Amino acid sequence: MLIAGLFGLLLWCAGAGAQSDPLPSWNDGANKQAIIAFVDAVTTQGGPDYVAPSDRIATFDNDGTLWVEQPMYVQLAFALDRLKALSKQHPEWKDREPFASALEGGVKLLDEFGDKGVLQIVAATHAGMTTKQFDAIVTDWIATARHPETGKLYTSMIYQPMLEVMDYLRANEFKVFIVSGGGIAFMRPWTAATYGVVPENVVGSSIKTQFLLRGGVPIIFRLPEVEFIDDGPGKPVAIQRFIGKQPIAAFGNSDGDLGMLAWTKYGPGKRFVALVHHDDGKREYAYDKESHFGKLDKGLAAAKDHGFPLISMKNDWKRIFPD
Amino acid sequence: MLIAGLFGLLLWCAGAGAQSDPLPSWNDGANKQAIIAFVDAVTTQGGPDYVAPSDRIATFDNDGTLWVEQPMYVQLAFALDRLKALSKQHPEWKDREPFASALEGGVKLLDEFGDKGVLQIVAATHAGMTTKQFDAIVTDWIATARHPETGKLYTSMIYQPMLEVMDYLRANEFKVFIVSGGGIAFMRPWTAATYGVVPENVVGSSIKTQFLLRGGVPIIFRLPEVEFIDDGPGKPVAIQRFIGKQPIAAFGNSDGDLGMLAWTKYGPGKRFVALVHHDDGKREYAYDKESHFGKLDKGLAAAKDHGFPLISMKNDWKRIFPD
Repeated sequence: MLIAGLFGLLLWCAGAGAQSDPLPSWNDGANKQAIIAFVDAVTTQGGPDYVAPSDRIATFDNDGTLWVEQPMYVQLAFALDRLKALSKQHPEWKDREPFASALEGGVKLLDEFGDKGVLQIVAATHAGMTTKQFDAIVTDWIATARHPETGKLYTSMIYQPMLEVMDYLRANEFKVFIVSGGGIAFMRPWTAATYGVVPENVVGSSIKTQFLLRGGVPIIFRLPEVEFIDDGPGKPVAIQRFIGKQPIAAFGNSDGDLGMLAWTKYGPGKRFVALVHHDDGKREYAYDKESHFGKLDKGLAAAKDHGFPLISMKNDWKRIFPD
Repeated sequence: MLIAGLFGLLLWCAGAGAQSDPLPSWNDGANKQAIIAFVDAVTTQGGPDYVAPSDRIATFDNDGTLWVEQPMYVQLAFALDRLKALSKQHPEWKDREPFASALEGGVKLLDEFGDKGVLQIVAATHAGMTTKQFDAIVTDWIATARHPETGKLYTSMIYQPMLEVMDYLRANEFKVFIVSGGGIAFMRPWTAATYGVVPENVVGSSIKTQFLLRGGVPIIFRLPEVEFIDDGPGKPVAIQRFIGKQPIAAFGNSDGDLGMLAWTKYGPGKRFVALVHHDDGKREYAYDKESHFGKLDKGLAAAKDHGFPLISMKNDWKRIFPD
């Protein structure tokens, strides 16, 4: 009886696994089918497309691929919040650019000073403290900061269908990495709780740091100088540096992801790459060619030319955010 | 009967695990006891020193800590072998330094041109090809290259007692990383087979690379320019960059490891750091303060001042190499 019960339980578990839908927030359609067909192909032992677990590497962009990037990148909202807090000790910023524009808002900063202005604001707000201090600053901020339009925590403005893809890949012995243009030190404090991606699996942009003894105690100090921009051609370079293997699956949403997608797609064996297309102005945002953030222009053409899918948030996803 | 058999088997397995010696190549003594006591402490649930598996990070230097670094670093032997092979296409090297000295041998190169000369040889031998081509070059070389004095494959000149420490830590849910002054791209092709350390867990020095399309095919090209030296204060910086967590255990053997050991030791909770001391001229090599390779000078004083152990190859290890 006990043995029969045990076997029954085992069979029930196996059956539930095989029959349950791994991507319940996805509408049935070509893209959902393609993801499942890819995973089936590379995990079928003895099949022509089998890939050993050690080579099952999947990389995900973050902004616009895993969480919301409108009306501005979350990290820029963080930088501006921090700039405001620090401005009490820096009255001179009111009369000095790009600080004055940044204090008026992110779009004003970008319009007037572009990426260079953003990097100056990052230097002023992300450096000048130890790595542990910065970690604590981010942890405190992300625990309470809210999206300006929905009023929700940023960590709840994440895409449920993409969480399901990450879970599905991990359940099939993939190693899932984030490879983002965002700051590596800005992401690591919360990606494990939010996405299940541990700090050592997060790759991103960075500023320089220095190892020092302060009063005999070792610290790593954050310097106001860009070390690496993990965007565009930087993404494959960072993937090689941090992971040392070519991914077999990659997901992005903007032109900055095309290098990662190209590097992932053009290797031996079966591969899967896709771009999330923000075409749902009702439930999220609709943008591509003209956006300040997450611009998708060349990517639309590349998807056609190279035959990889655009994931339509409007048509492919039953819901956008977790409950 | 079947149930009794199953339970018996389970009990037997548990018993074997608890009673077997996790470090059979170590002599009983303070260092072996200290390693075991540390692992017991951080893995005892409910105990005062318990560390969650996600924070069980251990880092190991490679040259002189995991494998032999005398009579010269293995990677320098690789560079010189490659220099010789390439010299047929570069007759001008016979009359140009530091190439001419390097073609006479590694010690001559170091004596005449120091680290700067070595970096020039690295640039000439490690760059100018794609990452995949370099991977293949290293894979071919390491499969047949032999130690000049023992005639053994370099990958068999590894330290059995340290393999046991890595296995023991992994069995206790540690993540084990290599953090080496050696080239990250030189190590990754063989560390998984040799040490069980997968490429994404290898951190090392690097040259710059560039992502390019060549005939429409994406490649990453290796450039003759140093990107990062993962030694001394570079080691904690690289640990923070690649892993994003402070290790709780670290093993090295030279002054270049002191930054990593300091960064590992001075955090909250129980930690374990140690230096392997090459004091066995009979079974391996005896060297410290005066060595060209793996110089251990400040480290001898630091071990005393900060109270961390030196592992004596002569006294602590029953055997040095695997059978």
